[in-house]
Amino acid sequence: MTAALGFTAQGVCAGVKAATNAGFETEAMRKNEPQKPVSDKRDLALIYCERPCSAAAIFTKNLVKSDTILVSREHLKNGVAQAVIVNSGNANACNPDGMEKARAMCALAADALGVAEDDVIVASTGVIGQPLPLEPIRAGVEKMRGSLSRDGSANAAEAIMTTDTVKKEWAVELELDGKRVVIGGIAKGSGMIHINMGTTLSFVTTDAAVSAEMLREALIEAADVSYNMVSVDGDTSTNDTLAIMASGLAGNREITEKDEAYRSFTDALTLAFKEVAKKLAADGEGATKLLICRVSGAENIDSAKTIAKSIICSSLVKAAMFGADANCGRILCAIGYSGAYTDVSRIDVSYKSAKGEIMVCGNGCGLAFDEDKAKEILLEKEITIIVRLGDGSAEAEAYGCDLTYDYVKINGDYRT
Amino acid sequence: MTAALGFTAQGVCAGVKAATNAGFETEAMRKNEPQKPVSDKRDLALIYCERPCSAAAIFTKNLVKSDTILVSREHLKNGVAQAVIVNSGNANACNPDGMEKARAMCALAADALGVAEDDVIVASTGVIGQPLPLEPIRAGVEKMRGSLSRDGSANAAEAIMTTDTVKKEWAVELELDGKRVVIGGIAKGSGMIHINMGTTLSFVTTDAAVSAEMLREALIEAADVSYNMVSVDGDTSTNDTLAIMASGLAGNREITEKDEAYRSFTDALTLAFKEVAKKLAADGEGATKLLICRVSGAENIDSAKTIAKSIICSSLVKAAMFGADANCGRILCAIGYSGAYTDVSRIDVSYKSAKGEIMVCGNGCGLAFDEDKAKEILLEKEITIIVRLGDGSAEAEAYGCDLTYDYVKINGDYRT
Repeated sequence: MTAALGFTAQGVCAGVKAATNAGFETEAMRKNEPQKPVSDKRDLALIYCERPCSAAAIFTKNLVKSDTILVSREHLKNGVAQAVIVNSGNANACNPDGMEKARAMCALAADALGVAEDDVIVASTGVIGQPLPLEPIRAGVEKMRGSLSRDGSANAAEAIMTTDTVKKEWAVELELDGKRVVIGGIAKGSGMIHINMGTTLSFVTTDAAVSAEMLREALIEAADVSYNMVSVDGDTSTNDTLAIMASGLAGNREITEKDEAYRSFTDALTLAFKEVAKKLAADGEGATKLLICRVSGAENIDSAKTIAKSIICSSLVKAAMFGADANCGRILCAIGYSGAYTDVSRIDVSYKSAKGEIMVCGNGCGLAFDEDKAKEILLEKEITIIVRLGDGSAEAEAYGCDLTYDYVKINGDYRT
Repeated sequence: MTAALGFTAQGVCAGVKAATNAGFETEAMRKNEPQKPVSDKRDLALIYCERPCSAAAIFTKNLVKSDTILVSREHLKNGVAQAVIVNSGNANACNPDGMEKARAMCALAADALGVAEDDVIVASTGVIGQPLPLEPIRAGVEKMRGSLSRDGSANAAEAIMTTDTVKKEWAVELELDGKRVVIGGIAKGSGMIHINMGTTLSFVTTDAAVSAEMLREALIEAADVSYNMVSVDGDTSTNDTLAIMASGLAGNREITEKDEAYRSFTDALTLAFKEVAKKLAADGEGATKLLICRVSGAENIDSAKTIAKSIICSSLVKAAMFGADANCGRILCAIGYSGAYTDVSRIDVSYKSAKGEIMVCGNGCGLAFDEDKAKEILLEKEITIIVRLGDGSAEAEAYGCDLTYDYVKINGDYRT
C-alpha cells in the first residue's frame, strides 16, 4: 500500500480487543498508563500521505452503520483526505458514544500526523455493540508517532485483520502519459462478507493524479464486478469501507474525465480488485476452498450477476463443495430461485479445477458422470463452477468459499 | 392425516433411494422381480379418499421445477382430487423423462386405487438430476394395493422423510355448523427450506366441506404466516408442494365464501400450520435449537416480516445461537441489511427461553448484560429472539434453527 509515491503507514498492537473484552476502560486506561495487552496482535493502523490527496470512498448499505462511516463520509465531502486511522477488535457500531469516539480517533491521528482533522478517514472493525475503549487507541497512536514508513504497509495490513488468516496487501503499476503510476492497497475480509460492498475494510492508495470525482467513478465501477460480487456468509457488515486516496506524485496529467487514461486507470483498479475479491473469498471464515462461479450466455448482465451470486451464496452449494460432492441439483436449484429469468432447458453446468473439467448438467438435466474424476476435481483448493446459459451473451463472475465446520466453530463463539 | 373422515393412507419401502444411487434400473427391476432394498426406510406413500375431494395446492416458486409439479398443477385445474402418490429418495427434477415418469406414477396410483388418473396429485423429494427409477415405485404401489387404512398415516409420514429425524403428523378439530370437523396432515422438511413456500412436501386432509376456491384462499392465507416464514438454509426447493383435500364428509354447509365458517376453518389451519412450521424448523438439517424471531412495533406488516426473516436467515445469527453467544451485533446487522426501513435508534432486542429473558440491545445500542444468565437462556432448545421496534404496531414471527457442524456434515455429502 506504500508502493505509491507519498504514502507511509504503520500498525501496532494497542490492545483494543483485550480492552473491549474486558467490557470497560480500566483504571490504567483512564489514567493513560501503559496497557499490558492480552494478545500481541496488531489492531491499530495509520496511513499517511505527505500531501493532501484527492479521495473517495464507498460504504456499507446497511441501515445500521458504525458512526465511523458517518464521520468519514462527512470528511470526504470535499474530496480531500490525507490520512486514515483504523482499528480492529471493536466495530464502534451500535454504541451511544460512537460518534464522539470516531471524532476523537480523527483528532488523535490529526495531532500525531500534523494534518487537518477533517482530512482524516476513520474506520473500525470487530465486535458490534460494545463501547470502544479509547485509551488504548490514544496510546497506540502515540506509539506510532514518527514511526510511519514505506515499510509499514505489512504492519498496517496486519492491524486491520480480525478472523482473517492471511493479510491482504497488493500493488500494481501501469503507465499514464508515459509516467509510471502505482496503485496499492490493503484489505481485510473473512466474515460478515456479502455482495453489497462485500468487504469490511479496504484502503487503496495511488500516486496517480485523479480528481476526486473520477476516483469515485473508478471506485464504483471496479467494486461493482469485484467487491460487489464476493460473498462469504450473506451478511453485510455495519462497517464496510472502501476508500481510495490519490497523491498525484506520479506526475501524470490529472484525470478529470472519462478519457483513455481514466479507462486504463479503472481497468488496472478493476483487475486488482478482482484479485482482492478472490483473496477475501479464499480466506473467508473457515474456508478451505475458493469458489468462482462464472456465468455466460445470460440474457443480460444483471441476470448473469444475479445467477452467479445466487449460486455462490447457496449454503447447500457451499456445503457440497466442502464435501467435494459434484451435486448438480443444488446449482440448478440456486439458479431457479435466483429471481433472474433463464430458459432452464438450456442450462449447462461444469465443475473445473487444476485437475480438469467435468460436465454434470446438460440442457437443464443431470448427466451421468465419472464420480471419481469429479471428486478429484473438487478436492482442489480453487473450484470454478461454470454455468452456460442459452439466453444471450452476457457474462459475470462471483466469488465465494465453501461452508465448513470451522465457519460454524468461528461464529459459534466469536466474542469470547 | 387419516383422522379426517374418508381418508386412508399407507407407506412402504420401495427401494427408490437404493435404485437411484445405483444410478440405473437393474435387470431385476426391468423384469419387475422383487428388489432387495439396501435400506428398509419407507419411501413411497399413497393417500386416498373414498370420494372425490375438492382440492387445492401451492407449489414452489423456483424456476427449476420437478415435473411432478407441472402434472399436479394440471390435475388440480378442475379443483378435484382423490389421491396422492409421493416418493422420497429421488426428486424427479432436472431429468429428461421427468414428465413421463410423473404421469406414470399417477397411472400406477389410479390403477391401484380405482380413481381417475387426473384426480391424482403426484410429488417427489430427494436427489435432483438423477433418473427416477420407476420399477421400485411400480412394485411399491402393488405392495400397497388393498392395504391403505386409517392406521397408515404414520407410515405415509415416514415415507416422505428425507433427512428429517422425526416424522411430522398432526390433526386438529373444530366445530362448523354444529358439526365436528377434522383437519390433519403430514409434512417433511429438513433441508432446502426457505421462505417461499418453505417446505418441501406437505399434505393436508379435512372432512370439512369447502369449495376448491375457498380451500385455495385458506391455504394461501395460512401458509403466508407459517410455511412462508420458515427458513433452514435459504434454499428454495424445486419440489415444494403443499396440497389440501376436503372430503366434505363432516356434513357442514359447504364453505363457498369468506364467511364466519371460512374464518374459523382458516384460523384452525393457520394455527396448525404455525406448529408445523416450528416442527420443520426445529428438525432443520443438523439443528439443535428452534429459533423463533418475533418482531413487533414495525411500521407495517411487510417490514415486520422482512426484518424477522432477515434475522432468522442470517448465518451469523444462526451460528451464534448454536454457540449460545448472546451477540446483539449480528441481530442489528441483519435488521440493517434486511431492506426494510426502521428507526435504528429505537430498536430493542432480547433473548428469551424457558430460563428467562435478557435484553442485549436498547435504543439501537449494545447493553452490558449478565453473560452467565445469557448463556443459561441460550443453552435451551427453543429460543425466541424478541425485536421491539419503535416505528408502529405491526408484528410478525419467523421460524428457523441454528447453523451447526451437522448441517455442514449432512450437506457436505448428501448424495452418497
